[in-house]
Amino acid sequence: MEPTAAQVACFEAGIKFGSLYHQFAGTPVSPDSADSLTAAMEEAIENQPYCEAVTVAVREDELREAIESAGADYTELTGRFLDVTMTVDYEGVVVETSMAMEDGYPLMQVETVRE
Amino acid sequence: MEPTAAQVACFEAGIKFGSLYHQFAGTPVSPDSADSLTAAMEEAIENQPYCEAVTVAVREDELREAIESAGADYTELTGRFLDVTMTVDYEGVVVETSMAMEDGYPLMQVETVRE
Amino acid sequence: MEPTAAQVACFEAGIKFGSLYHQFAGTPVSPDSADSLTAAMEEAIENQPYCEAVTVAVREDELREAIESAGADYTELTGRFLDVTMTVDYEGVVVETSMAMEDGYPLMQVETVRE
Amino acid sequence: MEPTAAQVACFEAGIKFGSLYHQFAGTPVSPDSADSLTAAMEEAIENQPYCEAVTVAVREDELREAIESAGADYTELTGRFLDVTMTVDYEGVVVETSMAMEDGYPLMQVETVRE
Repeated sequence: MEPTAAQVACFEAGIKFGSLYHQFAGTPVSPDSADSLTAAMEEAIENQPYCEAVTVAVREDELREAIESAGADYTELTGRFLDVTMTVDYEGVVVETSMAMEDGYPLMQVETVRE
Repeated sequence: MEPTAAQVACFEAGIKFGSLYHQFAGTPVSPDSADSLTAAMEEAIENQPYCEAVTVAVREDELREAIESAGADYTELTGRFLDVTMTVDYEGVVVETSMAMEDGYPLMQVETVRE
Repeated sequence: MEPTAAQVACFEAGIKFGSLYHQFAGTPVSPDSADSLTAAMEEAIENQPYCEAVTVAVREDELREAIESAGADYTELTGRFLDVTMTVDYEGVVVETSMAMEDGYPLMQVETVRE
Repeated sequence: MEPTAAQVACFEAGIKFGSLYHQFAGTPVSPDSADSLTAAMEEAIENQPYCEAVTVAVREDELREAIESAGADYTELTGRFLDVTMTVDYEGVVVETSMAMEDGYPLMQVETVRE
């Protein structure tokens, strides 16, 4: 069957998450550069169609700990340092999604679908 | 409301498309290296959860033309050189998706949702 | 023969250019989001060892033109929209490098090496 | 001063390393998909100018261990799973380079410069 508007809205939300993650994973990041990176991630993904709002926060404690335990000045961005929320609006269907760590993996989830 | 299984299946399919595109866009590619790149793209994304099958084809004519018109030996991978299909199976809901050029843009689409 | 300090300095400069380009190529970008992206690119790469300074500018006219001619709201970042300069200091050898378009390709160059 | 051919050769080698690393870091990888990924990495980077040869090997033991200890089926490609060698020839100057783990970091190095 052809997809419903709500299903397409969820597909669009998934595209944004995959884009955000795989575009920016691996970027050199430190506590000092975290703010410019999260701002860029938000604004870059908000360019994409149907994307109403993106918030990206870096878990600074986790980031500092990873950098210190490696005896380094920076590390590479990966899901364990990120909390993300995203709102997609496709033909009036509003999808709220999030990414956060669960059992050591960055879990991307649909929170709510409002038709 | 909480998402249905079919909506989550579409979200998962979207994640794979965003991942595939933004992980590999920008890769140096030529007609000679296209086959190894498409094989890697397929197998990489098939690792992701609920991803049953991925096929990636490079539009070789379009690729050759872009390289020749630039007087180059290779170019960077972008959506205009790609045809992609993908099958996601999430809790028995099977979603068929595709990416192909439409009006100069790589359009990612849900083709069918089978519950 | 083992490399000289000046040769290693040039190698390190090259690493930063390849990193900057392939990390961020493909990012969705519009005139409104260009500033946050260039700030993030600069600060991300400045984290890397021996990297003293990075400046990234987006060619806004070129960007607007590409977006308008495609009838779109944004496009994907690629070298044709970028001017980059970078200073690397490795063991007192200072290397100045740049990236700019030449004959339709983003040419990365060592400008000067000061020992 | 303007760079020597040997310095430019080292700069070119650095570009390839930064490209390889930041293009492919974050790719979903498992023992089963490692071979297609390394083949694609080699052929993609060999497209770049002056690049004579690239070999990429995945440290399978390290990869299996990381996947098992996370209770997962795959992980994301990062430097700790990679051994890379690369030969660049720029105007007759041959540069041999490598990447391997040292003190927990993927160290990129110029091995030899032959003029």
